[in-house]
Amino acid sequence: MSAVDRRLAQLGLALPEPLKMPPGTQLPFPWVRVIGQRARFSGHGPTLADGSVAAPLGKVGAQLTVEQGYAAARLTGLAVLGSLHRELGSLDRIEAWVHILGMVNSAPGFDRQPSVINGFTDLILEVFGPQVGAHARSAVGMAELPFGIPVEIEGEVLVRPD
Amino acid sequence: MSAVDRRLAQLGLALPEPLKMPPGTQLPFPWVRVIGQRARFSGHGPTLADGSVAAPLGKVGAQLTVEQGYAAARLTGLAVLGSLHRELGSLDRIEAWVHILGMVNSAPGFDRQPSVINGFTDLILEVFGPQVGAHARSAVGMAELPFGIPVEIEGEVLVRPD
Amino acid sequence: MSAVDRRLAQLGLALPEPLKMPPGTQLPFPWVRVIGQRARFSGHGPTLADGSVAAPLGKVGAQLTVEQGYAAARLTGLAVLGSLHRELGSLDRIEAWVHILGMVNSAPGFDRQPSVINGFTDLILEVFGPQVGAHARSAVGMAELPFGIPVEIEGEVLVRPD
Repeated sequence: MSAVDRRLAQLGLALPEPLKMPPGTQLPFPWVRVIGQRARFSGHGPTLADGSVAAPLGKVGAQLTVEQGYAAARLTGLAVLGSLHRELGSLDRIEAWVHILGMVNSAPGFDRQPSVINGFTDLILEVFGPQVGAHARSAVGMAELPFGIPVEIEGEVLVRPD
Repeated sequence: MSAVDRRLAQLGLALPEPLKMPPGTQLPFPWVRVIGQRARFSGHGPTLADGSVAAPLGKVGAQLTVEQGYAAARLTGLAVLGSLHRELGSLDRIEAWVHILGMVNSAPGFDRQPSVINGFTDLILEVFGPQVGAHARSAVGMAELPFGIPVEIEGEVLVRPD
Repeated sequence: MSAVDRRLAQLGLALPEPLKMPPGTQLPFPWVRVIGQRARFSGHGPTLADGSVAAPLGKVGAQLTVEQGYAAARLTGLAVLGSLHRELGSLDRIEAWVHILGMVNSAPGFDRQPSVINGFTDLILEVFGPQVGAHARSAVGMAELPFGIPVEIEGEVLVRPD
């Protein structure tokens, strides 16, 4: 068991299955693209353990409270870790987090995007610590997100050669 | 003729001229910025062969259907390839696609951004194949885009030294 | 005094203090993340010299004119330079600007995001010149931004080893 996996277990966290697509559909892009030491991850949303999209759907500030948005961003973080684990073989290969773009499906007038995206950032810092886990970020308000998910996050990590 | 140019010709695709700016205006930024092996391209929209902005303008889900949005994303891909061709000299210098951010001008309630941005992704995979062409991506809904274009896409490719 | 600092002084420009956070709050992320030669900066907004958020707040096209949006983007540029200066020790370590994502808090129907983000781009070109300062960019319309700021900009510069 890798050091990061042990840390996840200590925190009582399990990584979800890959996003469940509707039957017959296929994603035309990878969840993670590794180029040399860079691993760029695609926009992820919140999922349950079995890879189905996590409720509630909708806009933070309308269908979701800030607290529910925070929880969705945390689930999004677990989904990202699941994708990175499958692609890299071990999360211990992550040398450093680089940056994320935190996109919040925002009701008109909702302006607390940073409090929502903290759900992702807090998870990464708990799991990787402040040195490896620190990342540049933006937390911004989108008009709409696919399938009405409340949060979508993309970004990049630096990886050790295999 | 380069291998990628031959492939474009096989597919019956021609790359458009640079975006036509209104007379007297000048872009203060480059369409492509090359830093070592990284070529970062600026946000592009859909253009016609002569570089004029392609109609229809507006929001997908209101002024445009999903199919029209898909076509706009494909034209955006051709505009990006035109810019990369002019900057790199040859599209064969592209070693790998890295990632894109696919931004869809979205009507309220429109949540099928991935189906729109597939117009770009499908083009890149047709032209470059699954190995070179694969890219991490996000497909998200913007409140507004410049001049009312329906789609804007930015991203990065890895290039071989000249 | 570094060459870039002299240039800032010639232009009569001073870099602002770090963003003032409400008492008792702490940012869970760094303003700049340096990974090798890459310095990725987080989303910044416009600030005054003392680090407080600069008025006016709101959406460009409603609460702000294009000219006020341009001024906000210029202040955002100064805030970014302040963060880079504190992190890198000297702005002379910037070898090249790479790219920015220029996000404009946009009123319905406002589609002149490029004219707003020019406030940032023009500043960078004045200070660093066209060779070092050139950057790929997107200028796009967001539904909402944190605390109602009119502009948020993130991006990356290439730095010389210390």
